Amino acid sequence: MQEDKQVNQDDTVKLKLRRVIFGTDTRLGRYFDISLIVCIILSVTLVFLDTIAAVHSKYGDIIGIFEWCFTIIFTIEYLLRLYCSAQPIQYVRSFYGVVDLLSILPSYLALFFPGANFTLVIRILRLFRIFRVLKLLRYLSEGNVLLRAMLQSGRKVFIFFFSVSLIVVVLSSIMFVVEGPGNGFTSIPKSIYWTIVTITTVGYGDITPETSLGQAIAAFTMLLGYSIIAIPTGILTAEISQEMVRSKDLRRCSNCLKTGHEKDAIYCDHCGSELETEI
Amino acid sequence: MQEDKQVNQDDTVKLKLRRVIFGTDTRLGRYFDISLIVCIILSVTLVFLDTIAAVHSKYGDIIGIFEWCFTIIFTIEYLLRLYCSAQPIQYVRSFYGVVDLLSILPSYLALFFPGANFTLVIRILRLFRIFRVLKLLRYLSEGNVLLRAMLQSGRKVFIFFFSVSLIVVVLSSIMFVVEGPGNGFTSIPKSIYWTIVTITTVGYGDITPETSLGQAIAAFTMLLGYSIIAIPTGILTAEISQEMVRSKDLRRCSNCLKTGHEKDAIYCDHCGSELETEI
Amino acid sequence: MQEDKQVNQDDTVKLKLRRVIFGTDTRLGRYFDISLIVCIILSVTLVFLDTIAAVHSKYGDIIGIFEWCFTIIFTIEYLLRLYCSAQPIQYVRSFYGVVDLLSILPSYLALFFPGANFTLVIRILRLFRIFRVLKLLRYLSEGNVLLRAMLQSGRKVFIFFFSVSLIVVVLSSIMFVVEGPGNGFTSIPKSIYWTIVTITTVGYGDITPETSLGQAIAAFTMLLGYSIIAIPTGILTAEISQEMVRSKDLRRCSNCLKTGHEKDAIYCDHCGSELETEI
Amino acid sequence: MQEDKQVNQDDTVKLKLRRVIFGTDTRLGRYFDISLIVCIILSVTLVFLDTIAAVHSKYGDIIGIFEWCFTIIFTIEYLLRLYCSAQPIQYVRSFYGVVDLLSILPSYLALFFPGANFTLVIRILRLFRIFRVLKLLRYLSEGNVLLRAMLQSGRKVFIFFFSVSLIVVVLSSIMFVVEGPGNGFTSIPKSIYWTIVTITTVGYGDITPETSLGQAIAAFTMLLGYSIIAIPTGILTAEISQEMVRSKDLRRCSNCLKTGHEKDAIYCDHCGSELETEI
Repeated sequence: MQEDKQVNQDDTVKLKLRRVIFGTDTRLGRYFDISLIVCIILSVTLVFLDTIAAVHSKYGDIIGIFEWCFTIIFTIEYLLRLYCSAQPIQYVRSFYGVVDLLSILPSYLALFFPGANFTLVIRILRLFRIFRVLKLLRYLSEGNVLLRAMLQSGRKVFIFFFSVSLIVVVLSSIMFVVEGPGNGFTSIPKSIYWTIVTITTVGYGDITPETSLGQAIAAFTMLLGYSIIAIPTGILTAEISQEMVRSKDLRRCSNCLKTGHEKDAIYCDHCGSELETEI
Repeated sequence: MQEDKQVNQDDTVKLKLRRVIFGTDTRLGRYFDISLIVCIILSVTLVFLDTIAAVHSKYGDIIGIFEWCFTIIFTIEYLLRLYCSAQPIQYVRSFYGVVDLLSILPSYLALFFPGANFTLVIRILRLFRIFRVLKLLRYLSEGNVLLRAMLQSGRKVFIFFFSVSLIVVVLSSIMFVVEGPGNGFTSIPKSIYWTIVTITTVGYGDITPETSLGQAIAAFTMLLGYSIIAIPTGILTAEISQEMVRSKDLRRCSNCLKTGHEKDAIYCDHCGSELETEI
Repeated sequence: MQEDKQVNQDDTVKLKLRRVIFGTDTRLGRYFDISLIVCIILSVTLVFLDTIAAVHSKYGDIIGIFEWCFTIIFTIEYLLRLYCSAQPIQYVRSFYGVVDLLSILPSYLALFFPGANFTLVIRILRLFRIFRVLKLLRYLSEGNVLLRAMLQSGRKVFIFFFSVSLIVVVLSSIMFVVEGPGNGFTSIPKSIYWTIVTITTVGYGDITPETSLGQAIAAFTMLLGYSIIAIPTGILTAEISQEMVRSKDLRRCSNCLKTGHEKDAIYCDHCGSELETEI
Repeated sequence: MQEDKQVNQDDTVKLKLRRVIFGTDTRLGRYFDISLIVCIILSVTLVFLDTIAAVHSKYGDIIGIFEWCFTIIFTIEYLLRLYCSAQPIQYVRSFYGVVDLLSILPSYLALFFPGANFTLVIRILRLFRIFRVLKLLRYLSEGNVLLRAMLQSGRKVFIFFFSVSLIVVVLSSIMFVVEGPGNGFTSIPKSIYWTIVTITTVGYGDITPETSLGQAIAAFTMLLGYSIIAIPTGILTAEISQEMVRSKDLRRCSNCLKTGHEKDAIYCDHCGSELETEI
């Protein structure tokens, strides 16, 4: 009986913590989330600033201390999540569980494996910390609408990218033969790099065609890239347009069955009866 | 009685001036606005030309005199606006009030604070004068249609830019590790600059990847930028399309209730009765 | 009587010539037009090839002879047009009349005004010959559909370009102050050139920001350019979509009054009666 | 009788082989196709890697052996296709027949024509092998939807590209005169190359305007390119949108004649009767 109560009390603490840490519907839960986001952004900003040589030599030590503070905060957060999660093993295996672990592990690993290549390894490991930022995605579920439109146009976009890849490969081979290693096209993979730089209209200018024929093919490649940029735009726009019309059609008045109400309409514009909230 | 009349007369002058200066519905008001726009464009053009070394050494003095003329004209305009405004304090605090003041203040400040760093300070202060151009916005209210479409798609665009920022941060960190300070990627902030240059397909070529792995990641970044350029276009296009259909639906014939009339239609195309002017 | 016949015969020749030269509905007229287009393209190609130093030194003489042949052909064509036109003066004053004259005049002027700066002047005058290409426009009337969509979205596009200009001017001034003449931003006009290169995502890389603040502003400029590219696309797409729907609505069956027939439909899909040809 | 049986047996083998090699509806046929695709990608990847100097000097011999293996595999495949095709001559003349032959011929030609310019010729011939990749297109018929939309907007796009060509030619000539051979604009064809680099917003920076007037024209060219990028996007988007609506309209319920069903709908949303599969 005594034990049972203890377990019950534990459960109550767990439940409360879970609502704060995993939930976003209580005031404390929101405060927790917001302060976590601030910590993530601050810690990533520090890692970034530390890579500037001038900043590192001056403030490197202070940044190091701050980084340890953030690591400890995130470790406590990870342990709390493990403790109050309903299914801890499922959490550990989930995408965010892995990201949470990866964002604290590097700092500890750097402690146990110091040595000659100390600095570099740390730097690389530290960079995994930016995955902490990915946690921010948790707080945004609006992206789903865009994602759905993108997935629905996925098949068409795949064919588009497949065709572009074929064109890139063919053009790269031709340019490799036409320009040759003397003009910077040292190999076909490098030629593919040049073609992508050109077809996406980036145009660094680190490799440029020198021969007349090469410049003619380059001009053709640019016009091609300029034209085909229209295709994914067209596909996606048509898909988003349809998605919008569809979501409007879903708003059907349960009284007179008229559809096509605006997303923010409250009453049916035909019979005046109240509309159900959007699905 | 005498005083009252005086006040009334003053009020009449004020009212007339207000209609000319703030209004655009009288012929004089339109003339005033147009000559003001011409003055603004001329004065800004002069400031711009003055920054060219060859022009400054030759015509610097004449440009200086012209600038003072424009400053005096704009000062008189500012005082007149203050005088004839119905609520002078509200005008001073409004966006255009502040801009009007900022566009004349620098010239006077340059008078009172000359010194060693004379030229540079003047130049910087003078540049604030370009805010005068912002006044032109006052004469265009058509932009609201575009603004509304942009605001309505704001939430989707925000998520888009948030996702792009995350991708930029992750790619920048990876490129910093892969290429390193030796190839121009001296710090993560600089790496972020490179990623933005690449993902927006600007491609200056001041920093370019040298290693094979770096070039592969760069190629991926470009293709990504090339693809995601489609997303905001798709969102905005769908929104503008809907906005157009909506404004057409608003044109309802008050006689037979038929909707969907063209923006420039005058008579209902179903019953022939005159349509109300567009809302 | 005799004279009258003569006049009539002359008129018949004129009419026949007019149908061949100005019309495109006879077989001879089509042959005339096609051979004229071929002549124009050949003559312009020759002018272009002649500017390559290697080609000029080798084949300069032959090209010169060919150019004279084309000039004579186009002169005969011009005189014939003058002769058989119903209103010769109207033709001379029309856009194509002026272009036709401009495309033959330079060669003759080069004959009468030789001198010291012979080569250069000729070259510049010769270049006017490319206006001959503009004649090709005569053979395409399909562009009107696109033009109408563009004109209808003109007001919105103007506001867009006006806003972009304001942003460009403000950003240019800021960059001039931040980077200064030392880093290539020698004057505000040059700074405007840099801003346009950046905001249109061209990115030559001849002028690039060197300071951290400058690079941050540049990154902002790029993201801005990347975003606002969506706006004219959205406006034009919505306009073209509407134009297509409108042209479909115009296809109304005169029997049952049903609208919305496809552009290439021949029979009404509701009552089966023949549709009128497209307006 | 015996012979007839033999012929029949042969025919059965042929038919079975044909179903495996040309068909995709049996399990073996799918396995055959997938293994063929893997072979094609592997062989092309090897050709590409072989062009890297470091890889060639180390693994050149092994890659050579592998290439011969692939050549033999593709030769056997070609002979089998010839053998079991219903109309062998039609196959040889078809697009894929020519591509299949071109992808194996170079390796054999390299055997019979060795010599002084051995390496280069082989390399060029080898590159034709990438046409093997084109075979992949056979496995994708989804592209037709996109192709149809593109063909339908073909006339408008042609006029667009024709106008762009005219603008490019005129701007190139002007830039050639303004900048001249001293600033990299050595001939009009080169000037055309620069204009295309600029108008497509690629912007290599290998040729950049040096004079003020040239930079002003360049800025105009960029803004033009930035604006006209919207036109093909608009055309194609409107066309794809219409194509989608049209394919929805085609889904008509045979019971109540209601149209406009979703592409993946199974039952009519008005009377509940089953819909026919999509056309």
